[in-house]
Amino acid sequence: MSRALSNPPGAARAQPSSTEVARLAGVSQSTVSRVFSAGAAVSPAVRDRVMKAAEALNYRPNALPAILQTGRSGIIAVVVGGFYNPFFTEFLRCVTAALRERRLEIMLVDTASDDNLNDIVGELSRYRIDGVISAMAIHSTRVAKKLESAGIPIVAVNSKRVGGMRTVSTDNRAAGGAAADVLVDAGCRDIAYFAGRDSQAQAERERGFLKRLSDRGMPEPQRALAGFTYEEGYAAAVECFSGRSRPDGIFCVNDLVAIGVMDALRKEFGLDVPGDVQIVGFDDIPMAGWRGYELTTFHQDMDALARGCVDLLADAPADTRTTVPCRLVVRETTRNRAR
Amino acid sequence: MSRALSNPPGAARAQPSSTEVARLAGVSQSTVSRVFSAGAAVSPAVRDRVMKAAEALNYRPNALPAILQTGRSGIIAVVVGGFYNPFFTEFLRCVTAALRERRLEIMLVDTASDDNLNDIVGELSRYRIDGVISAMAIHSTRVAKKLESAGIPIVAVNSKRVGGMRTVSTDNRAAGGAAADVLVDAGCRDIAYFAGRDSQAQAERERGFLKRLSDRGMPEPQRALAGFTYEEGYAAAVECFSGRSRPDGIFCVNDLVAIGVMDALRKEFGLDVPGDVQIVGFDDIPMAGWRGYELTTFHQDMDALARGCVDLLADAPADTRTTVPCRLVVRETTRNRAR
Repeated sequence: MSRALSNPPGAARAQPSSTEVARLAGVSQSTVSRVFSAGAAVSPAVRDRVMKAAEALNYRPNALPAILQTGRSGIIAVVVGGFYNPFFTEFLRCVTAALRERRLEIMLVDTASDDNLNDIVGELSRYRIDGVISAMAIHSTRVAKKLESAGIPIVAVNSKRVGGMRTVSTDNRAAGGAAADVLVDAGCRDIAYFAGRDSQAQAERERGFLKRLSDRGMPEPQRALAGFTYEEGYAAAVECFSGRSRPDGIFCVNDLVAIGVMDALRKEFGLDVPGDVQIVGFDDIPMAGWRGYELTTFHQDMDALARGCVDLLADAPADTRTTVPCRLVVRETTRNRAR
Repeated sequence: MSRALSNPPGAARAQPSSTEVARLAGVSQSTVSRVFSAGAAVSPAVRDRVMKAAEALNYRPNALPAILQTGRSGIIAVVVGGFYNPFFTEFLRCVTAALRERRLEIMLVDTASDDNLNDIVGELSRYRIDGVISAMAIHSTRVAKKLESAGIPIVAVNSKRVGGMRTVSTDNRAAGGAAADVLVDAGCRDIAYFAGRDSQAQAERERGFLKRLSDRGMPEPQRALAGFTYEEGYAAAVECFSGRSRPDGIFCVNDLVAIGVMDALRKEFGLDVPGDVQIVGFDDIPMAGWRGYELTTFHQDMDALARGCVDLLADAPADTRTTVPCRLVVRETTRNRAR
C-alpha cells in the first residue's frame, strides 16, 4: 500500500534506536520503552530526561514490534454512515474523545452501507485493529461473523443484534411513546409519522409511537416515507400537504427531516408551526436549537452512547446489549400545555 | 497501549500463515502476498482462488512486517479542529474518499488547537504514518519542524506557510473582494465585517474585502468580532444592532456566523433580510441552502481542497502552495441587481 505515495520524504533516513536514547539519558533501555508505553509508571524527572534525549536524537518510538508480538495495536476502527447528518459527526466527536482518554487511536471508515464493510474491515485487520465501533447500524450477519471469526470485537449503535455483536442503543421505543404523548397532550387529533428508511432505530421509534397512540385511543396515524435528509423531509411534506388530509401533528424520524418539513410548511403552504401543525423531531442536533426552528425533539445522549461503545469493546462478553435513555427537549414547535 | 482493552477476545488464537493459504490455493506464497497488496497485478481467477482459501482458513493478512521493512504504513493522519462546523465534516468526507481511492487508511485526530498536535503526532508516528493532512490551520513552527525532522510530510488547509509545510488554500482574498462587490453593487452604503478569530483564512478574507471597498471609494467598514459559531454570530449581531449605527450590509467570516446573524436580526429586531440588511456568508455549508436561510455565500470546493492535499502529500516538494478558486453562490440574502 505504500506505492500510493510515490515520493516518500525522509524514507531513507536511519532511525536512532531506543538504546541510543537510553545511553544519552543515562537510563536503561526498558525505562525508555516504559516512557513510550501508555499507562506505565515512570517518575516525572526520569520521563523528562528521556524525552529530552529522544528529542535531541530525533528518536521516533516504534509501536510495530510490540504489535507483532501481542497481535494488539491500540487501534480501533470507527465506522460512520456518511457525514451529512450531524448525528454521525457528533458521535464521532464523542467517540474520538472517549478513545483518546484510553490512548487508543482511531481509524476512520466512511461507508454508505454495511455491504462494503466486509472488504474494508478485512483491509483494516491487516493492521491488527483491536475492535470496531460502528455508528452505522449493521444488518449483515456475514460482516458480524467475519469479524467474530477474526477475533475482532464489534460494537454497533442503534443496531439489531447480529451474531455476537455488542450493541449500544438509545431507548428508541420509549422515545416513540413519549412523542405520541407530547402530540396527544398538545391537542393533536390528526397525527402523522414521517418515517426513515430501513433502520432498527427508525423501526423502534415507530413501534413505540404507534403503540402509545393506540393505547391512548387514537386512530392509526398517516405514514409518509421521508428518509433521513432535509431534502427528503421537505419533499415528503410537500407531497403530504398537497393531499386531502392534512395532519395537525407530525413525529419525524430525525431532526433533519423535521426541519425540512417545517421549511416546506412555511414556504410552500404558509402554515404556522405550531399554530397549524405541531412537530416533534429526534436527535437534538445543534440546528434544532437554532432560533429559526426551536424544534421540540429528543436529545440522544451521544456521550453516553460513545462511552458505552468503548466500555463494551473493552470489557463486555459478546452479545451484550446496553440501552441509553434519551431526554425530551420541549421547545417551540409544540404547544406546551401544563402537563 | 494495548492495556486499555483488558479483555481481548480471541487474542490467543493462532494465526494461519500465508504459506498455508498458498498451499490450499495451489499457488506460491508470493502470489498470496500480491493478492493482499494494493495495486499488484493478479488475474481474477487466481485472486478468487486465493480469497477462497484465505476465507476457508480464516487467514488475516498482516501489514506489519512490510511496514517494519519499508518504514511506510499506508496510513495518513487527518487532523480536524472540532466537528461543530460542517466545513470540517465536509472536508473529512472528501479527504476520506480521496485517500480511499489510493487505498490509504485514515487515522483521525480531533484537537482544539495546534498546540496539542505535537504530542498527538508524536504518538501517531509510532505507527510510521506516511503523512499528515490538517484541515485545521497550523501556526506553530515547532509542530511543523518536528514533523519535518521525522521525515513526515504535512499538508494544511487555509494555513500560513510554516517551515516546509505544504498548503492548499481557498483563494480567500479574491473571495473577500468579490463579497465587497456584491454588497456595493446591491446598494449597501453602511457596510460591516463580522470577523472570526485569529486565522489565516479569516485574515485573507478581511484583507480582500477592505481593499476592494477602499478601491470602490467606500468608507472603512464597521468591524465586529464574531468568532466562528452560530451562537457567536447571534451575539455579535445583538451587540452591533443595539448600537447607534446599524449596517445595511454584512459580510460574515463563515456561514454559521451569517446564519446566527440572520436569526438575531429577525428574532431580536424584527428586521428583514435582505430588505433591511443584506448578508453574505462563506463556505456554502448545507444549511446555507435551507429554505429558511437561502444565504448568498461562497462555495469552497472541498473536493478540490481534499484532492489537492492528497496530491501534494504524494508528489510535491516541501513548501509547495496550491490555491483553489471558490465560487459565489447568489441566493436570497442579497438584492440581486443586474450586474
